[in-house]
Amino acid sequence: MDMMDISEIWEQLAWNQGGKIVYVILDGLGGLRDPHRGKTELQAARKPNLDEIAERSSCGLLEIVGPGITPGSGPGHLTLFGYHPLKYRIGRGILSALGIDFPLQPGDVAARVNFATLDGDRQITDRRAGRIATDLNRKLCRKIRENVRLDFEGEYFFETVSEHRAVLVLRGTGLSADLEDTDPQNTRMAPLDPQAKSAEAHVTAKLVRSFVESVERVLADERPANGILLRGFDRYQPLPSLYDRFKLRGVGVADYPMYRGVSRLLGMDVVAPPGGLKERFRVLENCYGDDYDFYFLHVKKTDREGEDGDFDGKVRFIEEVDLLLPHVMALEPDVLVITADHSTPAAMGRHSWHPVPVALLSRYIRTDDVFLFDEYACAGGSLGRRPGLDLMGLALANAGRLRKFGA
Amino acid sequence: MDMMDISEIWEQLAWNQGGKIVYVILDGLGGLRDPHRGKTELQAARKPNLDEIAERSSCGLLEIVGPGITPGSGPGHLTLFGYHPLKYRIGRGILSALGIDFPLQPGDVAARVNFATLDGDRQITDRRAGRIATDLNRKLCRKIRENVRLDFEGEYFFETVSEHRAVLVLRGTGLSADLEDTDPQNTRMAPLDPQAKSAEAHVTAKLVRSFVESVERVLADERPANGILLRGFDRYQPLPSLYDRFKLRGVGVADYPMYRGVSRLLGMDVVAPPGGLKERFRVLENCYGDDYDFYFLHVKKTDREGEDGDFDGKVRFIEEVDLLLPHVMALEPDVLVITADHSTPAAMGRHSWHPVPVALLSRYIRTDDVFLFDEYACAGGSLGRRPGLDLMGLALANAGRLRKFGA
Repeated sequence: MDMMDISEIWEQLAWNQGGKIVYVILDGLGGLRDPHRGKTELQAARKPNLDEIAERSSCGLLEIVGPGITPGSGPGHLTLFGYHPLKYRIGRGILSALGIDFPLQPGDVAARVNFATLDGDRQITDRRAGRIATDLNRKLCRKIRENVRLDFEGEYFFETVSEHRAVLVLRGTGLSADLEDTDPQNTRMAPLDPQAKSAEAHVTAKLVRSFVESVERVLADERPANGILLRGFDRYQPLPSLYDRFKLRGVGVADYPMYRGVSRLLGMDVVAPPGGLKERFRVLENCYGDDYDFYFLHVKKTDREGEDGDFDGKVRFIEEVDLLLPHVMALEPDVLVITADHSTPAAMGRHSWHPVPVALLSRYIRTDDVFLFDEYACAGGSLGRRPGLDLMGLALANAGRLRKFGA
Repeated sequence: MDMMDISEIWEQLAWNQGGKIVYVILDGLGGLRDPHRGKTELQAARKPNLDEIAERSSCGLLEIVGPGITPGSGPGHLTLFGYHPLKYRIGRGILSALGIDFPLQPGDVAARVNFATLDGDRQITDRRAGRIATDLNRKLCRKIRENVRLDFEGEYFFETVSEHRAVLVLRGTGLSADLEDTDPQNTRMAPLDPQAKSAEAHVTAKLVRSFVESVERVLADERPANGILLRGFDRYQPLPSLYDRFKLRGVGVADYPMYRGVSRLLGMDVVAPPGGLKERFRVLENCYGDDYDFYFLHVKKTDREGEDGDFDGKVRFIEEVDLLLPHVMALEPDVLVITADHSTPAAMGRHSWHPVPVALLSRYIRTDDVFLFDEYACAGGSLGRRPGLDLMGLALANAGRLRKFGA
């Protein structure tokens, strides 16, 4: 996209001074009213701390990418960090590779892999191979690396992410990422053939086809993981960092690989996976100080419960997170933001396009009358309903990190 | 900026007929709640006329330049006049020169000047030289003009604006305005060296450096103004006028030089400085008639009181302006707009990014239930919260000055 967006103006105005910003991102937090309860997950949850933050904050709704657009987690987060999602398009493959600390080199082509179960007719019966254990995943990856040889001027890497998730990286000359997914996102059909979307991708398509065939031969006797599905092919090009763009020294606190990957992609430091919700808040407290201006704490399970269609599970998890928020509030950051990268209503069981509630707390906000943190109450807040990209500008301004525009 | 903005469509639709538009711009009007009173400046003011206008108007909030962007007065006003602030970027130097009626020629390079106080080590002790009197400023400018010779193919002009403010204009071939400010916006440091931001500005940077050195020699025995600080270098290129763009014959009524400069830049007539608030409203009444379609009345002191952090002063001044509004209301213009170019909350003591309230009164508005003119009440108005640029289109439409788009 060629057009100038407002985040480029923030770049020009950002300076290396001002306060600290903390983002607490509850993945997939936004919901829909359950038809029986008449409440969204947030409305059903007991969440005194979220409500207190809302009461002291400027609230609103963020339409993350745009009207009707259901964001993946990558674009969802990039948007919240001030990277225009139509301009910075990062494939799932690159995010997965970054998420496991894989040392990507410019030009590498990466794809996200699912181990899957295929039946005797090569029909997919389970797109996640029963969510195999990470240990089995490691064993299978090793077996593939030891037995699959690819005939090209370069090398490939095939690495475990977790459970059924892995990542394929191709490194060499003449590679293209302009390939269709082989994951049909459906069962009772065969994996799709790797199709080139443009002429220069034919060689890579052939290479991937031969890789998939070899893998299926090598895994022929394995159960339940006897096949692989590839999606999100992308070519790695380093992005300008949060510091390059907004003069923010950032740190990411997240357990889940992809969010660690996004953080790293934007030049944030990423702490070792804390290994649990409470620990994540403790780690945030520990790294809060002079080294960083921007803190990103990521919480995954709201999204997971939503995807599982588990309304009550999502409610319970919101309540768990709520109990931990005083740890963040006690830090008294100059700007505290609570929001989500997209909605994942339990009623739908998947990501959705619905705007997400946001609360922004700082000394300089126009407070409003919102005293509940949910999708309905926040609609009446002083931030109004606005594009997700706006958030970073508002956070930077409230932290005193943007100079005046013009004289 | 290459992108098309909505104001270009208004250009295509504007015709030379329709009603009159009056803008009353209260500079820096928007505020924040004072923590003790729990009210913004507007909420604390007794302002029956503003409230009556709000009650009869369509109200809303304008986010002038964009989320998190704190507008300078130049971009703030350009936006309200329908000039996209990211596309029409005018340096402070040009605005200052226009503000004193200086006859700029295309290609002139201008910078805003502050007389400043330097100590024995050339450290800045006062960026405004104690706000010297305008008479002393005139004397110093004369002394500089008489004693500083610049060795280049061209000429320079050094002119008083008011108090500590002056303007430098360079006219000649091969000049560039791509220079860093010499004003560090801080004390206890030396003025910055005039740095070229690009190769073609090296010659001009050298010229400015030699000018600053000569000025400091000439002012060596002066107190408190013995140095100068330069900022907002810009090259003059005439803009398309309000008439070129929107078929509006405009007139500006303002005391403060910069706003006179903006008016002139857009091809408005500018009446002689009325010299006071009441006089300004009287002058507006006097020039209201067949000669103009667009009237811009500017009020500065709301911003000044905000910058001084004087909540009560700002409240009192709002009340003063309120008492004069019946003069405008009695003209019964086809469109009356009351708004601001940006917020200057007394609580912050500087310009801010917070949206400003707007009231638009015409025969054709969708009235709403807003009966108070303030930052909170207007949030519920029928105009909603929208970019500042939208205002001119709404004003033109309400004045019957835009044709239908398409058949």
